[in-house]
Amino acid sequence: MANCIVAQSGGPSSVINATIAGVVKANQMNPIYETVYGGLNGIEGILQERFVDLTHMSEEENRILRQTPSSALGSCRYKLKRENIKDFEKLFEIMEKYNVETLFYTGGNDSMDTVAALSEYAKEKGITNRRFVGCPKTVDNDLQHTDHCPGFASAAKFIATTAMQTWLDVNVYTRQEVFILETMGRDAGWLAASACLSGIVDLVVLPEVPFNKEVFLAEVKKCIDAKNKCYVVVSEGVKYPDGTYLAAGEAKNDGFGHAVLGGAGNAIKNMILESKTAERCKVQDLSTAQRCHASEQSLVDVEESFKLGMSAHMRSADKTFTGKMVGVKRKDQEEYDVEYFAIDANKVANFVKSFPKEWMLDNYRGITEEAYKYLRPLIMGSPVVIYENGIPAYVKPYYM
Amino acid sequence: MANCIVAQSGGPSSVINATIAGVVKANQMNPIYETVYGGLNGIEGILQERFVDLTHMSEEENRILRQTPSSALGSCRYKLKRENIKDFEKLFEIMEKYNVETLFYTGGNDSMDTVAALSEYAKEKGITNRRFVGCPKTVDNDLQHTDHCPGFASAAKFIATTAMQTWLDVNVYTRQEVFILETMGRDAGWLAASACLSGIVDLVVLPEVPFNKEVFLAEVKKCIDAKNKCYVVVSEGVKYPDGTYLAAGEAKNDGFGHAVLGGAGNAIKNMILESKTAERCKVQDLSTAQRCHASEQSLVDVEESFKLGMSAHMRSADKTFTGKMVGVKRKDQEEYDVEYFAIDANKVANFVKSFPKEWMLDNYRGITEEAYKYLRPLIMGSPVVIYENGIPAYVKPYYM
Repeated sequence: MANCIVAQSGGPSSVINATIAGVVKANQMNPIYETVYGGLNGIEGILQERFVDLTHMSEEENRILRQTPSSALGSCRYKLKRENIKDFEKLFEIMEKYNVETLFYTGGNDSMDTVAALSEYAKEKGITNRRFVGCPKTVDNDLQHTDHCPGFASAAKFIATTAMQTWLDVNVYTRQEVFILETMGRDAGWLAASACLSGIVDLVVLPEVPFNKEVFLAEVKKCIDAKNKCYVVVSEGVKYPDGTYLAAGEAKNDGFGHAVLGGAGNAIKNMILESKTAERCKVQDLSTAQRCHASEQSLVDVEESFKLGMSAHMRSADKTFTGKMVGVKRKDQEEYDVEYFAIDANKVANFVKSFPKEWMLDNYRGITEEAYKYLRPLIMGSPVVIYENGIPAYVKPYYM
Repeated sequence: MANCIVAQSGGPSSVINATIAGVVKANQMNPIYETVYGGLNGIEGILQERFVDLTHMSEEENRILRQTPSSALGSCRYKLKRENIKDFEKLFEIMEKYNVETLFYTGGNDSMDTVAALSEYAKEKGITNRRFVGCPKTVDNDLQHTDHCPGFASAAKFIATTAMQTWLDVNVYTRQEVFILETMGRDAGWLAASACLSGIVDLVVLPEVPFNKEVFLAEVKKCIDAKNKCYVVVSEGVKYPDGTYLAAGEAKNDGFGHAVLGGAGNAIKNMILESKTAERCKVQDLSTAQRCHASEQSLVDVEESFKLGMSAHMRSADKTFTGKMVGVKRKDQEEYDVEYFAIDANKVANFVKSFPKEWMLDNYRGITEEAYKYLRPLIMGSPVVIYENGIPAYVKPYYM
């Protein structure tokens, strides 16, 4: 009987572990694999044969794993490059050595590219007993074809909740206040837009539209004139029409050639103060917390992430199921419900799903009713949390 | 029958409204006041006769008020100065006009000074039918005599939870990482120290001890050498031995002559990178969220804050009860429990309770078992949260 590996890649989320929990649970319900290995630190650790055995995880551990944010198996930003044939050969050797038939890989579009590349390589070499299955995961919600990505909804719920809470905080004095909430979102505005679910956002600045300073400052002024307050949400990836980031002074590079951003909020603060549009301006950069603050896990999100892992496992019983990503399809009906489906990973890899321009109101004034209709069901429900000594109980990372 | 006013001052907290809810509920249970006015924006709004009537608040609104962070009545930083006799005269005129016998004022030590000053003024003028009662509230936990301050525990719980979550996030890659969590705490290290409740903090830098750069960097290096990671928590108010703030470049002033800080985390990041102690360093400044992120309300905290409001109301039936603050006294027994007591507000005003030096381990390595014994019971329990459209239901601010 063959084995499988589950592994995680890219930036963590609040529910990424639920997908792992789903694969493990599905195999306990129908043990098509003898051993479910957890591959540590993604492809990077698998190439070093760093595994843990997750096969017989207890129900209690499975439950706590589902509420544990961040990648319990560790992650990597190591990209399997098609020209680096040695990595491919090594990986297939390791799979053979451990009798691994299927590799489940959770991640964003770089990880789906890895899934596509590995299955293409197997096909080219005529290898038929190695399968590669992608599970989407990204707080950025920027993957194509899937209605949304596990991880996004919980980040959205955290952002909307924190927006509401900081709005309550910043308004308590009679004095003039501009508050700027900075969210993640390198290329797509999904996270920043989700702050609007709080119902208190005055202006939201998304990366999909080149930033118009004059229009923006005029809108801030209108708010200040009307109520002496202005609540702004800005995505880290907002750019000027010439393509430079608002946060340009801070921009660096990560391993994939993506800019590492931060500072769009401060850039906006400075332009508001320098133009004397307002006298006071406060910035909250949600930073790392927004992708791991599992206290706001959405029940919909955790359950979908778990079921997506189960679905990937169940589908992999089909020996031809490879090079696929399992996605979420929203049913075309009034009440929110989803189905799971599979799509070629190469149709997902390296594409970005932007926040639709037709869902944005003019002049940064928020999002349309259609956008709300899309976003609202995703943040519904809160799981019952297991606590230990006053803080949520989390599994000790398997890579430690 | 006379009336009372409840009002809020200073920076908000996650449970400050529970004290208001307690005063209102106590008066419904024993209506010693005909009307419970909510004074808007503290003394500032009371002097402008800006009131709402809270007397007949429904149980549902009371419950939602208890889970609503920040000051629902609005706040102020307006300080009643003893030399500004006009303000005193005006306030007593207004109290007479509205037949207000008792003013309940929630706040930190500046607010307790207001309570003390008003009751002294009444005594000097021989006014016997106006009473002033303080209710402690500060996330900083820096008030004397009371075992702890309502608001602190929920902020501590948020900080400890977020420390754990961001630690899980920052460790997922195999690369070297230093993570710096910056907390509030201008003069006292209670909030930064509470991050240790997560059990994952390597180094904690508190404002009670002058900062020793060499010792600190040597400790960071030890961590890096041992495990390639280092998790640091720093309080915004940390100073060099010469008294300048680490965040000195950023320091400004608020209305009370306190420095407005921010940037200690970045200062530490810069010294770590410049000294080449580590290659990578990430900062999360918890900023505004830490005092209003009610998603981590501690049940102990909410209930104490509520009961403290009730206790203040009940004690005020005594016509001589004025110039007092109601505090929390921890029972001297194994199992955590508290009693409420009253103390002269002038014994609390303008003093700061520091985090005890004997509770700090040497070289920033954390806090003692005695400190844990003090902190742990405070963050226990989580209230059942009422949600609306996927985010917690909060009362609309009364000042709007």
